[in-house]
Amino acid sequence: MSRRKLTPVEKARREIYSVSCLDILNHQNWMALALEQAQQAAQEGDVPVGAVIVRNGELIAAAGNARQRLQRPTAHAEILAIEQACEKLGTWNLSDCAVYVTLEPCCMCAGAILQARIPLVVYGADDPKAGAVKTLFSLLNDSRLNHRCEVISGILDTACGKVLTDFFQKRRDEKKG
Amino acid sequence: MSRRKLTPVEKARREIYSVSCLDILNHQNWMALALEQAQQAAQEGDVPVGAVIVRNGELIAAAGNARQRLQRPTAHAEILAIEQACEKLGTWNLSDCAVYVTLEPCCMCAGAILQARIPLVVYGADDPKAGAVKTLFSLLNDSRLNHRCEVISGILDTACGKVLTDFFQKRRDEKKG
Repeated sequence: MSRRKLTPVEKARREIYSVSCLDILNHQNWMALALEQAQQAAQEGDVPVGAVIVRNGELIAAAGNARQRLQRPTAHAEILAIEQACEKLGTWNLSDCAVYVTLEPCCMCAGAILQARIPLVVYGADDPKAGAVKTLFSLLNDSRLNHRCEVISGILDTACGKVLTDFFQKRRDEKKG
Repeated sequence: MSRRKLTPVEKARREIYSVSCLDILNHQNWMALALEQAQQAAQEGDVPVGAVIVRNGELIAAAGNARQRLQRPTAHAEILAIEQACEKLGTWNLSDCAVYVTLEPCCMCAGAILQARIPLVVYGADDPKAGAVKTLFSLLNDSRLNHRCEVISGILDTACGKVLTDFFQKRRDEKKG
């Protein structure tokens, strides 16, 4: 069966479509790993947020929120993952890395992402209480600062949000019981 | 020589005046310690910013910026001091502490101060490039967030600024030479 030759516009559309589908699948795969980190955090009694850092298609670092476990207010998933990645790569500059995180970063973590010069931030669920990327502030896209990031949001957002609501629901139930 | 008895208003004024003078002297003493930390950081090749954390008039933690030394983008003076204080006190919650820092905190550090629930932030020089307390953002006084801080700025600001300008001038001279 012979196929009609595609017009240049159709060809471009098809390319864009297939690339962006692959990208989304790719983002979902990394986010699924971040989600695993969030679930582990929940098991240790910490608010379930997880993050991974990726470089050239390779996993560099993975961490879950550990504020309670470590009794350290800076032990958010993103901060721990950034510190792990820097330790591994021997540099404070992560300008060839991407960070995947299940929840929209807070001011501290958005600031750390800027400090580390990370160019791509992919996150799952929005954070209406403390989100500093889009919800309350737009710290990653402010022309007055010396670094800006590409941001993709909403990747596996339902699952990323559910792990949080389940955690808080369980905590409320335990308090009642 | 007998003195005229003070009126209640005069008495109140004198009290307020003397308390605030003592407070400022107190703030300057702690800031001088933060400044020592900044100077040490400069000696190790790091941008000279220093911080100390104080609780009930006692020094709990002291750190200088160590981004280069540790190759860690999160190793700002405030973050290191907060982590030291939490380690020492065994809790992520520093709601009975004050932080003294030579330079206006950036987004990351202002965020960490919020996370640690520190109620009083005293800083020296404003940061026109990245200040997130007053200059570019007002992160420590935003009614949408779950914590706000009292902020006192300008304590030993000339000395705190000079250690920075001297550092960058020296670096420029070394590049030229």
